[in-house]
Amino acid sequence: MTSSDLHDQMREMGRAARRAANALAVAPAEQRSAAIRAMAMRLREAEGAILAANSADMEDATAHHDRLLLDAGRIESIAASLEQIAELPDPVGVEMDRWVRPNGLDIARVRTPIGVIGMIYEARPNVTADAAAICLRSGNAVILRSGSEAQRSAIAIHAALVRGLEDAAFDPNAVQIVATTDREAVGMLLSGLDGTIDLIIPRGGKALVERVSREGRVPVLGHLEGICHSYVHAAADPAMAVDIVRNAKLRRVSICGATETLLIDREVASELLPKIVQALDGCELRGDEGARTIVPMKVAAAEDWNTEYLAPILAVRLVDGIDEAIDHIARHGTGHTDAIITQDEDAAEKFMSRVDSAIAIWNASTQFADGGEFGFGAEIGIATGKLHARGPVGPEQLTSFKYKMRGSGQTRP
Amino acid sequence: MTSSDLHDQMREMGRAARRAANALAVAPAEQRSAAIRAMAMRLREAEGAILAANSADMEDATAHHDRLLLDAGRIESIAASLEQIAELPDPVGVEMDRWVRPNGLDIARVRTPIGVIGMIYEARPNVTADAAAICLRSGNAVILRSGSEAQRSAIAIHAALVRGLEDAAFDPNAVQIVATTDREAVGMLLSGLDGTIDLIIPRGGKALVERVSREGRVPVLGHLEGICHSYVHAAADPAMAVDIVRNAKLRRVSICGATETLLIDREVASELLPKIVQALDGCELRGDEGARTIVPMKVAAAEDWNTEYLAPILAVRLVDGIDEAIDHIARHGTGHTDAIITQDEDAAEKFMSRVDSAIAIWNASTQFADGGEFGFGAEIGIATGKLHARGPVGPEQLTSFKYKMRGSGQTRP
Repeated sequence: MTSSDLHDQMREMGRAARRAANALAVAPAEQRSAAIRAMAMRLREAEGAILAANSADMEDATAHHDRLLLDAGRIESIAASLEQIAELPDPVGVEMDRWVRPNGLDIARVRTPIGVIGMIYEARPNVTADAAAICLRSGNAVILRSGSEAQRSAIAIHAALVRGLEDAAFDPNAVQIVATTDREAVGMLLSGLDGTIDLIIPRGGKALVERVSREGRVPVLGHLEGICHSYVHAAADPAMAVDIVRNAKLRRVSICGATETLLIDREVASELLPKIVQALDGCELRGDEGARTIVPMKVAAAEDWNTEYLAPILAVRLVDGIDEAIDHIARHGTGHTDAIITQDEDAAEKFMSRVDSAIAIWNASTQFADGGEFGFGAEIGIATGKLHARGPVGPEQLTSFKYKMRGSGQTRP
Repeated sequence: MTSSDLHDQMREMGRAARRAANALAVAPAEQRSAAIRAMAMRLREAEGAILAANSADMEDATAHHDRLLLDAGRIESIAASLEQIAELPDPVGVEMDRWVRPNGLDIARVRTPIGVIGMIYEARPNVTADAAAICLRSGNAVILRSGSEAQRSAIAIHAALVRGLEDAAFDPNAVQIVATTDREAVGMLLSGLDGTIDLIIPRGGKALVERVSREGRVPVLGHLEGICHSYVHAAADPAMAVDIVRNAKLRRVSICGATETLLIDREVASELLPKIVQALDGCELRGDEGARTIVPMKVAAAEDWNTEYLAPILAVRLVDGIDEAIDHIARHGTGHTDAIITQDEDAAEKFMSRVDSAIAIWNASTQFADGGEFGFGAEIGIATGKLHARGPVGPEQLTSFKYKMRGSGQTRP
């Protein structure tokens, strides 16, 4: 396909998405639920086709990708996840606030869909279905762009989703997928396709995030790295500190809420750090000088404090109290999730107020940074920016609002 | 100053703003209130210097600008407006929501400042003071860039504001002003000054809006044109329709909430349009063919439906019912403010749900599109985008939020 053909095709996708979004926005919530349930059914039905496409993707994959692999169990769990999203409360039309002015004007703030969302993601087939369902739950149309390694799986899943949309009498253009691996298509999405895309959600590595911030012409709900800290304060309960740090680092090392750096107050480090290290079985440690005098470990280089390992590696630094911990997080954190472990409520409140993170935690694991754990039912990602949404992005975070002002003939003096 | 010197100076402004913002974010609300009150006092005190600067601006002005002119009364009213902002509830730290998960995790959503705001505006001296006070009320630092015609007035006002900040023991870098009329400075603000600017608020004409959307590398809370519609439905109360349309068009023609297009149902037009026209004394009318057969008026050209007149001119079009009215607004509106006048509640609710406007009004004037009229106390502008904030932008709309998660040792299964 020539670049000009691709441009034409992408612009037509944008226009079709806009039309579909206009219809979605005024459809009853139950119709959206029915569509999501139908998508789940059609996914199960398409198991054979999806697995065949996935085998082809797996054969061409440059490395072994556990996240890319599908089997019957994973397809079932994708379908089950859609069925959960179908049961979530529909945010569209919900009155967020309502008040009457002294002149009798009755003002209501009401949730509305955003419109058309461009979702650019990596090689995870389940995101194709999840993102489509969350967008639909919030009344938005979506244009999906899968990572090229999962392209065939994504297209097969998308075909099933479209059948579900049609079962519920929706315009199939409510969920579209970019069917080329041409990277120029990403640039076109980032340009906003003549204003038909309202929001870009990138979900991928550094290269994608950088490209989005360089080329993006539409608002972005992005998530930068999750360099999350667990800070063991002098007044921490020792057993709790051990449990939480182990869980925060090792429960799953590859998620954005995994702790990457342990900060520990110098005055309790000689007592506590050996116990924590003992619990971090199989984890590589990289420490500052203070940490290394207590427990032998590798030397932490300057870049370690700025690295999202997503691996069983932990940077360790001793600090002289809460202010130094907060300062370290201000310098090296990414505004994602940071925790303090302490029995001192004043210290905890100070930490939670001062750290400039989407999620500030007291006495729990940073791995709770997840829309499901927040009770949002589903999430499309974690936003680390401060505009529009911050933290887990579920259906409610994918809405905008409007004001409805009801009068009885008021004119402005 | 060379371009490289300007770059260095602007980047230092950004860094200083970031430091000031960090301090502002944790300052008590009462300290912010005290600063705003002190700013008002210092403004009154600086009346002589401000009027002298304003005379110099007026002498160089290329045209007569009523908005640029200051006198003692206007300075008093700017100071009084700051005192009102000082009394507004402080949004920072307010708990928006709080809930406990089944595992005992207590999650609170708490308002936080956004950080550093870049405010780029036209030649209105009062905006210098208002924007600074609204940003301070919401805990944000601000970098102001006044239109060049009001530059000397703005710098004189800014000097008074800084004295107020210092009276309340705040870092004067919490409110900075770009002291050059070099247009390159605007480009630097739009680049985000090495990530030190979190949000740009442009307030100006089309050329500025276009430059921002072309060059902006940071989120923008902007307002496009306000092409607002008043739609007189067949079931409108005739007297109410006359009153509302007159007010919506003529109360002040130069504000963004002024109605630019009148839509009227064909079945009542021959009866109602002459009465409405009679009330629109001094207003130029430009009509479609249907309107012109009822009342003699100029021909509306295609571009009239897409023009924000900000003048005593009204485009008039007859429609065949509510769907055609909604469709016209979808094609020509700017998502700002649109009103229906009708006694038919079902029609009103349909209209308010379907029009994709920040503010959808039933039986009142579009001129109510104003933060003060909403009860927000003050506004920095009206947002027409759908992300983050929509409609009037007051102190609350200039905040972000964070989650505080309070646990008792929870680890994630």
